[in-house]
Amino acid sequence: MIDTPYLEVDVDRMMRNLTFLAERARSIGVAVRPHAKTHKCAEIARMQLDLGAAGLAVATIGEAEAFADAAEITACTDIFIAYPIWPTPAKAARLRTLADRVSLRVGIDSVEGARHLAALLGEQRIEALVEVDSGQHRTGTAPAGAGEVAAAAVAAGLDVVGVFTFPGHGYGVGDTRRRAADQEVAALRTAADSLRAQGIDPRVRSGGSTPTIEFVGDPSHAGVLTEIRPGVYPLNDAQQIEMGACGFDDVALTAVTTVVRSDAGRVVVDAGSKILGADRAAWATGHGRLLDHPDARVVQLSEHHAVVEFPAESASIPRLGDVIRVVPNHVCNAVNLVDELVAIDGSDSRWPVIARGRNS
Amino acid sequence: MIDTPYLEVDVDRMMRNLTFLAERARSIGVAVRPHAKTHKCAEIARMQLDLGAAGLAVATIGEAEAFADAAEITACTDIFIAYPIWPTPAKAARLRTLADRVSLRVGIDSVEGARHLAALLGEQRIEALVEVDSGQHRTGTAPAGAGEVAAAAVAAGLDVVGVFTFPGHGYGVGDTRRRAADQEVAALRTAADSLRAQGIDPRVRSGGSTPTIEFVGDPSHAGVLTEIRPGVYPLNDAQQIEMGACGFDDVALTAVTTVVRSDAGRVVVDAGSKILGADRAAWATGHGRLLDHPDARVVQLSEHHAVVEFPAESASIPRLGDVIRVVPNHVCNAVNLVDELVAIDGSDSRWPVIARGRNS
Repeated sequence: MIDTPYLEVDVDRMMRNLTFLAERARSIGVAVRPHAKTHKCAEIARMQLDLGAAGLAVATIGEAEAFADAAEITACTDIFIAYPIWPTPAKAARLRTLADRVSLRVGIDSVEGARHLAALLGEQRIEALVEVDSGQHRTGTAPAGAGEVAAAAVAAGLDVVGVFTFPGHGYGVGDTRRRAADQEVAALRTAADSLRAQGIDPRVRSGGSTPTIEFVGDPSHAGVLTEIRPGVYPLNDAQQIEMGACGFDDVALTAVTTVVRSDAGRVVVDAGSKILGADRAAWATGHGRLLDHPDARVVQLSEHHAVVEFPAESASIPRLGDVIRVVPNHVCNAVNLVDELVAIDGSDSRWPVIARGRNS
Repeated sequence: MIDTPYLEVDVDRMMRNLTFLAERARSIGVAVRPHAKTHKCAEIARMQLDLGAAGLAVATIGEAEAFADAAEITACTDIFIAYPIWPTPAKAARLRTLADRVSLRVGIDSVEGARHLAALLGEQRIEALVEVDSGQHRTGTAPAGAGEVAAAAVAAGLDVVGVFTFPGHGYGVGDTRRRAADQEVAALRTAADSLRAQGIDPRVRSGGSTPTIEFVGDPSHAGVLTEIRPGVYPLNDAQQIEMGACGFDDVALTAVTTVVRSDAGRVVVDAGSKILGADRAAWATGHGRLLDHPDARVVQLSEHHAVVEFPAESASIPRLGDVIRVVPNHVCNAVNLVDELVAIDGSDSRWPVIARGRNS
């Protein structure tokens, strides 16, 4: 018995998700470089790599360090920091140390940023990928400008090996995912051509997110992506359910909670935003879902309370003291709130969240 | 130089906030029991107690344990777990151990919950407060039913010393705060009368939240509250600014971030929901504010990116590599994402977030 609330992983379900994705990628002919920012666990990274992953993607230098430190568990020495870092001298020193330990790639997305990075790296050569904006409009240069960034980076001393994007604007309902997947491929195609025009071979063309995986094998996309970087797919979450990217049976991570109040058609559980995360997209139907009560909705969330409403016709409403499983809206932020995951695999292992809080 | 992003506390500002609240409470004649779930730091708790706080409020057994363990720093041995815990035998054992170490109070909000708690506590006597719902509609019994819960608790062996509520529905714009403050006082008055009708003295009547503090001294409220439990007031956040409960000059905690991309009227910084938290109330104008650019808005947030837009007439838009300070929407969830706060007090102390992640 572990005191609630805590995060639990259904290892059988997770293995099914991992295997499905690995086989799908193999049949399409793209490499998988899972984004480890979702699970932040060496044990899960190891399973991904055992199933053929080419390496790991991470978002920060700190995450890269955590996984480099865990190489004994993961057997991984190939890490891509998929982010256009603007390093201070201290951060550049950390990058140089990392590059001595693992095969390291980093993101760049501007001429100025590439020159700044190269200057601080000095003699240390590392591989770089140019980030392009495929429609999310956060970081990334315009696809047609990728060649200019790449050329400046090469001139400054970086080894530019390709381009990448994140189709984060594919998070949504309706045809949002399909549209973003098409835009992703178009952006990478334009960006790759832009590098070729500068005489630079874009041999890595990296994209992909869990909600757009479904479209990666589409004939109209053939030959563009060489690598996908999905993060959420091993565990899934309420967002993936509500987008139609997975079903309840595919959810492998839940918050195990206790009912602390029960009224007619309505219960309150002892898990809130400090273990579920506070993410709620505009299109979400609530603050999370209940794994065993698909009709229920989390209608209110505070730090240690989730208020759940059940439809009037609901057969079984949980009672005071019942233990129920909540599916967080966004698994990446939920995992980042705990020190370990409880792995339900017959032996109730605890997996340390080794990259928790490694924001810098 | 610390690598961005990190959370920084302006200690002078925080001291001003602490002193203001302590003096205000003293002049009105209510005790202050700060909610330590906001800062989760022994150092800040110590300052609150030095300024006259009666004890601490927390939300979980784990937070209570963290502060009991830190009694050498805080000098605090009086803790109220303001939550209607439904304990397992294991949690009840933790409560018994805590009650041997500190003066402990807990919340109850149902007859069944009170009996369950009392049965598991056995011979260990602890003080209990009945939680009532003043309008937020999460936990808490109806105010007129407080006496029934209190009587059942007393019969089961708990020492009922009063009533409490949290006017969380006061978070909002317009007259929301004022209305919630009025409802809070009305609920506590009804609940106190309900206890008296059962022959139980409601000597503690505890309420209060940072956005309703302003109304605690209102003549029409006189004599109802004996104690307030604000949490956010030492540090403040973008929600408090946007509700009109504080100004930019009162914000003592910011995320220190680096600009990683800069376009016309728009920058991206290296802080996202994994350090700011993902809270965004329906009435919020964005995902956070910039301390030194009140006109800017965080229009998009992902795990490690905040996209900030500036009005066209903005005089100074930050450039690539600039370090800028972001005010999180909800400071409680931001603090819970880091292991330490950087205290700007002349010596750049680091304050461990001792109760981070103590959800159970």
